[in-house]
Amino acid sequence: MSGDKPEFIYLDNAATTRMLPEAVSAMLPFFTETYGNASAVYEAGQLCRGAVMQSRKTIADLIGADRDEIYFTSGGSEADNWALKGAVELALDKGRKRPPHIITTAIEHHAVLHTCEWLQKQGAEVTFIQPDMEGFINPEEVERAIREETVLISVMLANNEIGTVEPVARIGQIAHDHGILFHTDAVQAYGQIPVSVKNMGIDLLSASSHKLYGPKGVGFLYIRRGIHLPSFIHGGGQERGKRAGTENVPGIVGFAKAAEAAGKRMKDRMEHERCLRNQLIRQIMGRIPGTLLNGPAAAEDERFSEIRRLPGNANFCFEGVDGEALLALLDMQGICASSGSACSAGSLDSSHVLLAVGRNHAQARSSVRFSIGAFNTKEEITQTAGILEQDVRKLRAYT
Amino acid sequence: MSGDKPEFIYLDNAATTRMLPEAVSAMLPFFTETYGNASAVYEAGQLCRGAVMQSRKTIADLIGADRDEIYFTSGGSEADNWALKGAVELALDKGRKRPPHIITTAIEHHAVLHTCEWLQKQGAEVTFIQPDMEGFINPEEVERAIREETVLISVMLANNEIGTVEPVARIGQIAHDHGILFHTDAVQAYGQIPVSVKNMGIDLLSASSHKLYGPKGVGFLYIRRGIHLPSFIHGGGQERGKRAGTENVPGIVGFAKAAEAAGKRMKDRMEHERCLRNQLIRQIMGRIPGTLLNGPAAAEDERFSEIRRLPGNANFCFEGVDGEALLALLDMQGICASSGSACSAGSLDSSHVLLAVGRNHAQARSSVRFSIGAFNTKEEITQTAGILEQDVRKLRAYT
Repeated sequence: MSGDKPEFIYLDNAATTRMLPEAVSAMLPFFTETYGNASAVYEAGQLCRGAVMQSRKTIADLIGADRDEIYFTSGGSEADNWALKGAVELALDKGRKRPPHIITTAIEHHAVLHTCEWLQKQGAEVTFIQPDMEGFINPEEVERAIREETVLISVMLANNEIGTVEPVARIGQIAHDHGILFHTDAVQAYGQIPVSVKNMGIDLLSASSHKLYGPKGVGFLYIRRGIHLPSFIHGGGQERGKRAGTENVPGIVGFAKAAEAAGKRMKDRMEHERCLRNQLIRQIMGRIPGTLLNGPAAAEDERFSEIRRLPGNANFCFEGVDGEALLALLDMQGICASSGSACSAGSLDSSHVLLAVGRNHAQARSSVRFSIGAFNTKEEITQTAGILEQDVRKLRAYT
Repeated sequence: MSGDKPEFIYLDNAATTRMLPEAVSAMLPFFTETYGNASAVYEAGQLCRGAVMQSRKTIADLIGADRDEIYFTSGGSEADNWALKGAVELALDKGRKRPPHIITTAIEHHAVLHTCEWLQKQGAEVTFIQPDMEGFINPEEVERAIREETVLISVMLANNEIGTVEPVARIGQIAHDHGILFHTDAVQAYGQIPVSVKNMGIDLLSASSHKLYGPKGVGFLYIRRGIHLPSFIHGGGQERGKRAGTENVPGIVGFAKAAEAAGKRMKDRMEHERCLRNQLIRQIMGRIPGTLLNGPAAAEDERFSEIRRLPGNANFCFEGVDGEALLALLDMQGICASSGSACSAGSLDSSHVLLAVGRNHAQARSSVRFSIGAFNTKEEITQTAGILEQDVRKLRAYT
């Protein structure tokens, strides 16, 4: 799966991915040849509309959804904002008892957390469920938090920092038993692990293309048929009147090509990532003392059981080491990794996820995430483990 | 400016444009080579961040703005939504007298109109100023509509359907005299005609890339320094904490390349489009009886005076003809044009713009917009005028 490789080792695939060449190729004709407006009536517009329709189906198939339940957005953040704000607006429109109440978790991506904080400012109430030490949310705690005013439960499918795959099927069931909408931020899970909106009882699901070897700037919100979520971006009649803005035809087509590949190669990719991930964990934990694995224990035999951790995610705490200094050293040696999520890179705050799973500030600041993707190789992992061992020793010697 | 031409005549450049080949080329490395997350600390991320910074400057220069006043969005619709909802939220945060009041016009794009309607549902009040018969908004009427509760004036820079270029400098002055924020939807004007945020007193300006031979799925909101507009899409710290979501690096880079070309070639492109537009108007009005020009009279000597009409815009009412039928005939002959705006194509409603400038429903439904762009040629216009003459005669013979 390597192709022509760049000279660095890219282990930040949870932040963004290198595009599949076939996804780029699929986009090209829509820039300068079939460039019509997909809403236009003439043939050039219809060709674009057809391509968007076909893409919508490919993208829907991957989660067992119907084509007309997919609403394209500019990415995962917009989809999360839409889902949360839309669900509250819908409840208020229906005359539900105030103040509207949302149940979510302390380890969501900021696109969910900060939207919740904004909704609190508008008068909503939010319960943030705490995870256990591996990052798992207890469905029973979710159920206990339900009130008469609860309008939405939002629990991520997989955590972006520590890779915990949440028990969303059980949480979806609880939501439905209580007649409450269930949203999941699946930005890290869509196309990476099997997801079924029907089996998991999902009403609203956010996803992004660029985590999946597709282009940046496109994602979608799945809205289960029958849910009349109000618009978030108002204007033209695109996306069946629900999301205004000229369709990003090349982006959508590239996303679909990446989704198609993800569907076909999912088992292989998962196995590939899991092997490399387990190799990295073994080598790091075996060779570098004072190292903790953040997130769920990664079972070697995971293929035979439920998926507890994203196949490509490894997150370590190197005690006594400054994570940012380690990242800088790794960067000089051509290794791309990250502390926390890219979206808050450069911020001085400790990761809210690591704090929530019980790490202290010092431990959180000494943590680094490696996210393995389809293009990585065994040699890269071996090389990374060796460099890491030296770097950690070097940094510890300074302090 | 033609390059390798497709086999159709594309006269719907106000809906979307064919990308400049150099803008496509500029994007390509960012798909598969320099694909890092622009928020990441390592070199691959920094390269992307640098490209985004450089692009921001190019894009800002075109309207005399500073780099850090440009906030990238997914397009014009998102920028319009952000500007309007943000301005109201800002006013409420400041404890301004309720209900917040907005002044806008009856001929705005739906991204503004429908956002205003949503704000009305939330309790805001909105005054919709009516245009004159050429589509011009009278600044004095805007001033008369100002109340103590007015928090925003939003008047488009140029109308997407009939090309009227509004007196925004005068309206900006009025807004500032009264201490009111001024937003302009410049989606049809940015890069097409000279725009200066400083000379025009603009506080907030929306623009889009794909109207300008750049990629779809990217645009920006200009926010004048010192205006603390709240976020619309909450989440990660991108765009100086104001607009969450992984930066669409290739899209931004392609947009900048298109903006750069627009700056360099603006005079030539305007002259080119104006020539073809005036040719089309002369030929149509001279050869097809029962034809009305919608929008401002296009002065032949316009280059010597203020710009009253977008150089590429021509919009005709062919009395007694069904506009949709005419579009279908034109499409069969390889000519792409549109009725109203693409964003509401296929809808059975008459254009709100044409009704506002005094056309009746029958006239509005018999209108067709031709929007000329940089790639069009004199031969295409001659051919179009000839085909139109036949088609209109044919359709009138049926009725």
